Amino acid sequence: MTFRYANGVPTSTENATADILKAAADPKVISFGGGLPAPELFPVEKMKAAADKVFDKYGQSVLQYAETLGYPELRKQIVKLMHDRDVETTFDNVGVVGGSQQAIDLVARMLINPGDVVITEDPTYLAAIDVFNSYGAKMVGVEMDEDGIKTDALAKTLKEYPEAKFIYTIPNFQNPTGRTMTVERRKELVKVADEAGVPVVEDDPYGAIRYAGEFLPSLKHFDKDDNVIYLSSFSKVLAPGMRMGWLVASKEFMAKFTIIKQNADLHSDNLTQYIIAQFLEDNDIYAHIKKITDVYEHRANLMLQLIDEKFPKNVHHSTPEGGMFIWVEVPGVHTEDLFKECIKHNVAFVPGSAFYANAGKDGTFRMNFSNMNDEQIKEGIDRMAKALKVVMPK
Amino acid sequence: MTFRYANGVPTSTENATADILKAAADPKVISFGGGLPAPELFPVEKMKAAADKVFDKYGQSVLQYAETLGYPELRKQIVKLMHDRDVETTFDNVGVVGGSQQAIDLVARMLINPGDVVITEDPTYLAAIDVFNSYGAKMVGVEMDEDGIKTDALAKTLKEYPEAKFIYTIPNFQNPTGRTMTVERRKELVKVADEAGVPVVEDDPYGAIRYAGEFLPSLKHFDKDDNVIYLSSFSKVLAPGMRMGWLVASKEFMAKFTIIKQNADLHSDNLTQYIIAQFLEDNDIYAHIKKITDVYEHRANLMLQLIDEKFPKNVHHSTPEGGMFIWVEVPGVHTEDLFKECIKHNVAFVPGSAFYANAGKDGTFRMNFSNMNDEQIKEGIDRMAKALKVVMPK
Repeated sequence: MTFRYANGVPTSTENATADILKAAADPKVISFGGGLPAPELFPVEKMKAAADKVFDKYGQSVLQYAETLGYPELRKQIVKLMHDRDVETTFDNVGVVGGSQQAIDLVARMLINPGDVVITEDPTYLAAIDVFNSYGAKMVGVEMDEDGIKTDALAKTLKEYPEAKFIYTIPNFQNPTGRTMTVERRKELVKVADEAGVPVVEDDPYGAIRYAGEFLPSLKHFDKDDNVIYLSSFSKVLAPGMRMGWLVASKEFMAKFTIIKQNADLHSDNLTQYIIAQFLEDNDIYAHIKKITDVYEHRANLMLQLIDEKFPKNVHHSTPEGGMFIWVEVPGVHTEDLFKECIKHNVAFVPGSAFYANAGKDGTFRMNFSNMNDEQIKEGIDRMAKALKVVMPK
Repeated sequence: MTFRYANGVPTSTENATADILKAAADPKVISFGGGLPAPELFPVEKMKAAADKVFDKYGQSVLQYAETLGYPELRKQIVKLMHDRDVETTFDNVGVVGGSQQAIDLVARMLINPGDVVITEDPTYLAAIDVFNSYGAKMVGVEMDEDGIKTDALAKTLKEYPEAKFIYTIPNFQNPTGRTMTVERRKELVKVADEAGVPVVEDDPYGAIRYAGEFLPSLKHFDKDDNVIYLSSFSKVLAPGMRMGWLVASKEFMAKFTIIKQNADLHSDNLTQYIIAQFLEDNDIYAHIKKITDVYEHRANLMLQLIDEKFPKNVHHSTPEGGMFIWVEVPGVHTEDLFKECIKHNVAFVPGSAFYANAGKDGTFRMNFSNMNDEQIKEGIDRMAKALKVVMPK
């Protein structure tokens, strides 16, 4: 029987990005297309020790139904992590979710009616675009430069769309561009959003993975009017297979969030919540993060150096200070042509068009460095350089 | 700042059920109101052993991002469980979710547009009512008797609402009534749904917890036209804190489901999926279920016997053959009056009105026996009998 689906369900299960990723999944292909953390850095033994302790100490309660907003001890640990990120909050303002993807989804569900305007950076995280689309949002992209979203353009957009439901932004090492918003822009963004009465959804999965430059306070730090909903995750600092993220918002928002989270899954996996809380109690997470950032810094620098050496001189790239991605622009080239040529050379990336809600900028693409060893980076960049020679205008 | 919420978000965070459960949470109160499995039966040591093995064998991959539909080995185990339930299916038709609550939520999201009709048993699972409401459904309840939903009434309702989006049913040991649908009704339900072209969402969290009577094939067993979406869960047979459930549906449906599940949380917790798969590989789940059903049978029978002895003679109750709940009807009494009187006597239940989408039947309530020891059952029934004496019409 063929079902009559709701409006938010795509009529086709085909999509260009899925096809591209399928092409890149061939084991012969060196893929800079993924967005995976380096698995060799996962703290397997320490996580196992935390799990053992949890079963021994909390055997029955960890396996029972629990609080919708999350395990209290984990939420207390998150309050500490937020303090380290220069945000003072309380236990009651924190909710635990199944990865920050669930936070994006539930916040969107709480705010978007079909037809509502959502303002995003252009380009932005592709799975956020999918979520906002599925709730029937009309997306309006705001231009970025190397300093992040252009706040003057944002102010203009807010005047044009005063009824916009929220602004979605990734201030640190943005996916896909790797760019970081400057402090001035952060202050300005919070200010113009406050003035417009439009909430800000600050997505910060990568902020703790900084290997260069200085720590910058989050938008939530500058939020004096409970207008920022802050999202983050353990995926990049611990392990993404343990689907654990969190959000921080006003108590009023959290009261409504509790109802929607209860509808969605009653609560997040209790066992994993206990294990992460135990891990955080027993280990220095910043020592662990240092191991990650040392490796990522090395890989990013190697990739950037080789791009500078081997790609044509007119290629632009971002120079991230953390995170997992580099954004590349090749003037005068169609990304699609380059992608096809790269696949012939057994190397892949994600074309820029995947990250634009509306028309994208041609010649752009995203490259991942976190999950690539030196040999893969060297060989992959060589292959891309050869493919670029074929498609570059003479 | 006050946000402008989407239509699906309740304007008030107060609700009668929450208030009732709060009253019942006082430690002096013996609460038959919960819906928790008995924690002393959780297989803590075996689960710990499974977790250890998973960390040792699959260290890095268990902590990495994974497939949206779930860990393949777990899905294969679920195919076997389905076979034991007389449903032949394949790996590709199975999706793993964060408890069957998430299955209810995502299936509803995939099928309901605001204003759509959803047909449910009357009464039905309260958190399903909340979900369907949150997507803007108009709920139409169909009367039940001791044999489950009345299929002649269902056929009439389907004629009245030919555009209904789906029928939601809990055939085994229904929540809240504890009733089980007869085989004849099961066949008839699948037939009238097929004829009407309306899908069936079969929610079966309790089916494996049968301690009396004979195994009955599920609706999915009789489904020849891929018209039944079957949902189940590890919450009642293993542990609800490990939020793991599954759904079985046509490949066409699963292709769309994959997109929506990806939006919702990318995939369910990978660590917990691996641990449950390992537990199922290393242990006889039916031996474990036997331990659960022995205890639940004892508790249910004790509670029923005491109700028969101590409650007034005109009280009706269901006689479940499994699951966790008994449904009680007290003619001539307002449930609210009884609830207040019971709280004075330090004993609680869930008033029937919570389980009706529209007007409920007065004098009804749900009692849980799975999480109550003998002393609590004896003392609690004594207190309820005293409260009943106060409120029963003379």
